[in-house]
Amino acid sequence: MPKQVDHAERRSRLAEAAITAIDDRGLDAVRMVDVARAANLTTGAVVHYLHSKDDVLMAAFDQVGIRSARRLVETRGMDPVERAMAYLPHDAETAREWRVFLQFWGRGVSDAAFRERHRKGYEAIAGALREELARLNTHSAGLVADAMIAAVDGIAVRVAMEPDAWDTPRMRDTLAAVILPLLAAHQPQTSTVTPIRKD
Amino acid sequence: MPKQVDHAERRSRLAEAAITAIDDRGLDAVRMVDVARAANLTTGAVVHYLHSKDDVLMAAFDQVGIRSARRLVETRGMDPVERAMAYLPHDAETAREWRVFLQFWGRGVSDAAFRERHRKGYEAIAGALREELARLNTHSAGLVADAMIAAVDGIAVRVAMEPDAWDTPRMRDTLAAVILPLLAAHQPQTSTVTPIRKD
Repeated sequence: MPKQVDHAERRSRLAEAAITAIDDRGLDAVRMVDVARAANLTTGAVVHYLHSKDDVLMAAFDQVGIRSARRLVETRGMDPVERAMAYLPHDAETAREWRVFLQFWGRGVSDAAFRERHRKGYEAIAGALREELARLNTHSAGLVADAMIAAVDGIAVRVAMEPDAWDTPRMRDTLAAVILPLLAAHQPQTSTVTPIRKD
Repeated sequence: MPKQVDHAERRSRLAEAAITAIDDRGLDAVRMVDVARAANLTTGAVVHYLHSKDDVLMAAFDQVGIRSARRLVETRGMDPVERAMAYLPHDAETAREWRVFLQFWGRGVSDAAFRERHRKGYEAIAGALREELARLNTHSAGLVADAMIAAVDGIAVRVAMEPDAWDTPRMRDTLAAVILPLLAAHQPQTSTVTPIRKD
């Protein structure tokens, strides 16, 4: 089915171009022509696939989600801190992704459609992580998944705002400071810390 | 000095109005007239204090920072989880603050002046928290402060994007899941978990 393959390839290429264009111009300022330039296509070719600016933004958003889900599979079995590191802005691609994603949070504040997209994205990642943790007999796997995701998001913000101050060792140390005691506290076999439950 | 008091009061009132106006209209769309309406003043009176839209944004940003610093003092001595709760979107005021702050992150992505403002804000809060933790003989106080702030930021994002799914118990449980094992791991007197240092 060469035509379908071409179609999927074209969509993915346009989604990547949308991320690049949003990063260059900003979420509010980005135009179809910016996506076309980033994709090295005509504006007409872009409009054929992405009909409106909303389509451009959603394609970029979905592409970040696709990469996120792929990363979870690709890093399976790795050390949990290194795994979380794969999500932080540690190279040009992930730094760009986060610069765009932070703008999507800002948009979500006032736009219910974006909030719904965020909800689904978090549901997918948190759900997959929770299931993995539960298979490892982690206590309160959903809670641990939420806590790990919060640490990644919170550290990513600092890196995006202060890229010079947050080098790789600082990211890794901060992740480890959250993730290692958190996992230890929820693994009955090795844990010596009792989580305090407040009611 | 009644005139100076009036001046400070007016600035603070305008900064609060700026937060309200940004929350209502969005960071990009907000106008002087929106701030004037929120402050119940004429646009001329607003322009007398806040000369440009950038001044409006910076006044709102600084006001969030002032509240943040005040909160750190007001909650001193409280249980660390309850203290962190005071920072999360738990009432109308803090929810509005976060909706505005998330937009400031989005702006920081492409605006070095905003990133510098963020850097200074984090430096103030992380520095004060680090000093407090060090006084309590917490190991790696700077690292623990960074980790606690990341947890608050990361959870606040989820609450802002999914306010219906993140009620107070879920916020508190997620904070506790991060903060309690983290603090236990860095308190030599009571700790039984050795933080693993990766080099």
